Amino acid sequence: MSKTPISSLGEFGLIRHLTDRLPKIQPSTMYGVGDDAAVMRHGDRCTLVTTDLLLEGVHFNLEYVPLRHLGYKAVAVNVSDICAMNAVPTQITIGLGVSSRFGVEDLEEFYAGVRAACEHYHVDLVGGDTCASVNGLTIAITCIGEAEEKDIVYRNGAKVNDLICVTGNLGAAYLGLQLLERELRTFRATQHGNLAQVQTDDSIHEKFEGREYLLERQLRPEARMDIVETLRKAGIKPTAMMDISDGLSSELFHICTQSKVGCDIYEDKLPVDYQSAALADEMNLNVVTCALNGGEDYELLFTCDIHDYEKLVPIDDIYIIGHITEGNALRLIPRTGEPFPLTAQGWNAFEK
Amino acid sequence: MSKTPISSLGEFGLIRHLTDRLPKIQPSTMYGVGDDAAVMRHGDRCTLVTTDLLLEGVHFNLEYVPLRHLGYKAVAVNVSDICAMNAVPTQITIGLGVSSRFGVEDLEEFYAGVRAACEHYHVDLVGGDTCASVNGLTIAITCIGEAEEKDIVYRNGAKVNDLICVTGNLGAAYLGLQLLERELRTFRATQHGNLAQVQTDDSIHEKFEGREYLLERQLRPEARMDIVETLRKAGIKPTAMMDISDGLSSELFHICTQSKVGCDIYEDKLPVDYQSAALADEMNLNVVTCALNGGEDYELLFTCDIHDYEKLVPIDDIYIIGHITEGNALRLIPRTGEPFPLTAQGWNAFEK
Repeated sequence: MSKTPISSLGEFGLIRHLTDRLPKIQPSTMYGVGDDAAVMRHGDRCTLVTTDLLLEGVHFNLEYVPLRHLGYKAVAVNVSDICAMNAVPTQITIGLGVSSRFGVEDLEEFYAGVRAACEHYHVDLVGGDTCASVNGLTIAITCIGEAEEKDIVYRNGAKVNDLICVTGNLGAAYLGLQLLERELRTFRATQHGNLAQVQTDDSIHEKFEGREYLLERQLRPEARMDIVETLRKAGIKPTAMMDISDGLSSELFHICTQSKVGCDIYEDKLPVDYQSAALADEMNLNVVTCALNGGEDYELLFTCDIHDYEKLVPIDDIYIIGHITEGNALRLIPRTGEPFPLTAQGWNAFEK
Repeated sequence: MSKTPISSLGEFGLIRHLTDRLPKIQPSTMYGVGDDAAVMRHGDRCTLVTTDLLLEGVHFNLEYVPLRHLGYKAVAVNVSDICAMNAVPTQITIGLGVSSRFGVEDLEEFYAGVRAACEHYHVDLVGGDTCASVNGLTIAITCIGEAEEKDIVYRNGAKVNDLICVTGNLGAAYLGLQLLERELRTFRATQHGNLAQVQTDDSIHEKFEGREYLLERQLRPEARMDIVETLRKAGIKPTAMMDISDGLSSELFHICTQSKVGCDIYEDKLPVDYQSAALADEMNLNVVTCALNGGEDYELLFTCDIHDYEKLVPIDDIYIIGHITEGNALRLIPRTGEPFPLTAQGWNAFEK
């Protein structure tokens, strides 16, 4: 019997295919598959749950990712999913599969990163499962969060004329990855050992001089918990929100599809760090493409009512990049010339 | 730098080492690492969370485990952890890492099992993460449950003179595994193909005739959600409880250590199915050892006050196997001869 390749459906198509028409039996289930986190009603508040699986060789390369950073990032990316619902992360659990090439010291490093992230985001590590694996390192993280029902923001609430905003800047994590991959190729060709372990050596430091920010964005991203707090203080409740893990275009596609709207994004409004621009130039990459399709920035993408404009403007680190339109067209308005369609290329993990 | 092998600490030692002195920052965190599930207070009720990682080649062998059964079992073992807290399972999330040898049809089979289990246990599948893996199948399941604070049963509440009870029977899942491993060896030596796929053929059926119950116990175990309900109706609240995943001895060790007590277990009280006894005999295995140390039965082990004796006796499928003692000695009282110490051999996944 010949099998249908998973890549023929893609990640999103596969999830839709497998989770189509899931019943809801429990009265506490408010929202299931299809957003950054699931939502359950417990008493007068809601509990949110999100889960992520990180696999060695797919999501991270231990040739240049230090285990401490990996532990931190594993927590941060899950915290980010809870923030993207406008909720407060509270607890995490960690499932860890480790092969015999890892020693106790390696796991101590990983957990040091986990603890640092827990401290930073005020979440408690409350459980987990540690077991042997045949191949490499497997990390399964679940993050729990809390919110009042009225505060939760889904992907499906964007309305025509809403402002489209992003936090921080875009493309830096992707460019950090390109830099690490380039140095890894050089390193493999000239030296023995592990690039992750020599990153603290002076010899390797100069390779990354002036690019430290890009490395940090790739290796140790932060969840924008600060923005959730800032918006609350400013009295702004986004109409739709999600975090940018697969790339801006892909996330805009999710918000517009679920909200049944289109969008116009302005090229000259896309926030890009100067280190990103410089490295893109050096590596002959189009920096706008990096900003649109580079993943793993873990910034927040949100829409809000146009009447919130005055409240938004004075806030640091939030950028209005476009607005929601009628119909279903996602368009990029370039600095000069005609608008062209944004394609949600995202990240199809099942394509070779 | 030479690394300390993880096997030198063992699974429990490793978890203790890594999760020692974890801070609790969130006011909702009631109980963290150390029981079947973590407990969080949300409003007037509690939310429970448990997580499990199942890895191909470590926890299951797809040469004889049908994917549909695997999906069912993955849910059941997590539901079992919530039941072991005397709570009600409500939602699950699934993280799935799949390599290119799996097709859409394979995942449909797996999800058919997941859905069947969700239906049986009345839990909603509310989220997940599906991604490509380099090697084999990785399953991360998180189960959420609910309970009132006063109903939750931990491992640390056993008191001297409490009765020790188990549900169902012991050792059957382990013996089912031995049977499957034996047939797999024969199959490999004589045929091509996949044992999991031919289990429905008549040719293979006779190999398992009279042993179907053992296969079912290994391949498609059930969580004892019925017992939680039965105990509630009978007005019995256990003083300590956990599910038997690693083997009775190992679980008794957890309950006695955490409760700071000892126990006496009577060999002639251990419930064993006749199919288990027959196969153990055929394979020259000691059936008492199978009952004490064979894992994956997912029955419940609990202690309760001696005054509940009259209420316990009429209940089907619950067996009193011993009682809690002062001190810290775990003893097996054989049919004849002197008591001897129970050793919690459990299941050290990190030993070769």
